[in-house]
Amino acid sequence: MARSSSEYLFQQVTIIGVGLLGGSLGLVLKEQGLAKTVVGIGRRQPNLELAVQLGAIDRFYSEPQEAIRDSDFIVLATPVDTYVSHVQQWGQHVPSGTIVSDVGSVKGRLVFDLEAILPTTASFVGAHPIAGKEKSGVAHATSRLFDGARCIVTPTSRTNLEAISKVRGLWEKAGSEVLSMDPMVHDWVLGAVSHLPHIAAFSLMHALKDVQDTSSETLHLLDFSGGGLRDTTRIAASSPEMWRDICLANRENLLKMVDQYIGQLQAFKQLLKNQDRAGLVKNIEQAKVLREGLT
Amino acid sequence: MARSSSEYLFQQVTIIGVGLLGGSLGLVLKEQGLAKTVVGIGRRQPNLELAVQLGAIDRFYSEPQEAIRDSDFIVLATPVDTYVSHVQQWGQHVPSGTIVSDVGSVKGRLVFDLEAILPTTASFVGAHPIAGKEKSGVAHATSRLFDGARCIVTPTSRTNLEAISKVRGLWEKAGSEVLSMDPMVHDWVLGAVSHLPHIAAFSLMHALKDVQDTSSETLHLLDFSGGGLRDTTRIAASSPEMWRDICLANRENLLKMVDQYIGQLQAFKQLLKNQDRAGLVKNIEQAKVLREGLT
Repeated sequence: MARSSSEYLFQQVTIIGVGLLGGSLGLVLKEQGLAKTVVGIGRRQPNLELAVQLGAIDRFYSEPQEAIRDSDFIVLATPVDTYVSHVQQWGQHVPSGTIVSDVGSVKGRLVFDLEAILPTTASFVGAHPIAGKEKSGVAHATSRLFDGARCIVTPTSRTNLEAISKVRGLWEKAGSEVLSMDPMVHDWVLGAVSHLPHIAAFSLMHALKDVQDTSSETLHLLDFSGGGLRDTTRIAASSPEMWRDICLANRENLLKMVDQYIGQLQAFKQLLKNQDRAGLVKNIEQAKVLREGLT
Repeated sequence: MARSSSEYLFQQVTIIGVGLLGGSLGLVLKEQGLAKTVVGIGRRQPNLELAVQLGAIDRFYSEPQEAIRDSDFIVLATPVDTYVSHVQQWGQHVPSGTIVSDVGSVKGRLVFDLEAILPTTASFVGAHPIAGKEKSGVAHATSRLFDGARCIVTPTSRTNLEAISKVRGLWEKAGSEVLSMDPMVHDWVLGAVSHLPHIAAFSLMHALKDVQDTSSETLHLLDFSGGGLRDTTRIAASSPEMWRDICLANRENLLKMVDQYIGQLQAFKQLLKNQDRAGLVKNIEQAKVLREGLT
């Protein structure tokens, strides 16, 4: 049954970068009838053709300008370090009242930078759906990707209230629990609970290689891994380019947090060196209590 | 149906410390008819009574001597740092031909120390079933605990071949895949693939607390944990006393390994500080390849 235009949350949505996240968002928009038209922008034509076949977008362009000028919602779903150059390219064509958003894992100063480039008649509302899969690409997109996940939106003092409300509504329709957070606080929180654990896992894999390489033992260490090591390092098998970009974009928080982590490892080492039985039990007991407090 | 004594792998097994591991081993011995009699030694009478009720042991003593002198298999299942004092207490009563074994997570020099205390007519065969549960205590014991797990036995040049064969046979009957390793190599391997990841997880929990405590932000960081943090730190919720003992017993390996881990974190930090895009991708790519190679 055809809907009248006024029944849609958005008339035309443009998704810049139709991969796992962008494609899954397109499926949500189409399946739930939230957008009359969904347009994809990307560099690789076979990928965009697949996105049309899968029903994630209605049509696509390789150049964004034409789509941008008719869109009331534009979503950046490319790597975070490309956002500024994207918006510099088409920012001046964004119609008055249009909402620009994203699905990136880093916010912080980037949000203020994008606000500064966009015309004041447009609204930027940062969004970070905390969802993903081991596999990337539109071929793995699914409208259920965001169902039950958290989505953090990061409005600023400049953000239009109606725009915030529409973006929140979209992610709620996708099944997500929507939280609101200052963009700088977002990066501090995610730096601690997501980015630092990734760095811990990357470096642990390297440390095991180092332990192997600095020994004369021919037996292959990693053949003896158990569930503990597998769990601890699961997130080490993540996309290198994506994690390079996240780490660089959240560099200042992470430099400090990695130092704090090193400080804690040194403190543990000192307890061990001193054979401080009471200190070791206290340290491990506190870690256990903190871990058991995770929601 | 009653068996004749010659059908049993062991006539009388004494288990020193009837907790999760000792109790589960008792259940395996009884359920599979591997031992005619299983005797438990422990300090807490209600625990030993429960072990009898559960069928993990036939009877118990609070003092070991009486059981030791009639046993052909004795298993240490108390914390590793108590082994030496236990064996010093009753070592001279161990009958000729008796096998002494254990279920501990650390071997190394401890194996040679125990060999030196025991009479030369007895055999020590170190065994490390790599199995456990979140919960401890005989109440959680099950004969399936070792099924599908690995068990590392750590014979030395002194170990009697028949004794090795009997201990291997027991763990194979318990459903484990049995591997043989030099005691020093065992501690190096387990230090890397199990003990170091535990220290990484303990210190990561402390680092997150440190990040929280050194910020003026009132929002509670750990409310925003996702699957990545939960997996990475799952093993931080382990028994403090057990992990104090393991870390102290494997202290020399671990002091070196924690340093190697800190070195890798510092290397990552340097790449981040230098905004070395190629270096970061290479680092994360290598971590991913190493992680994907885990069996």
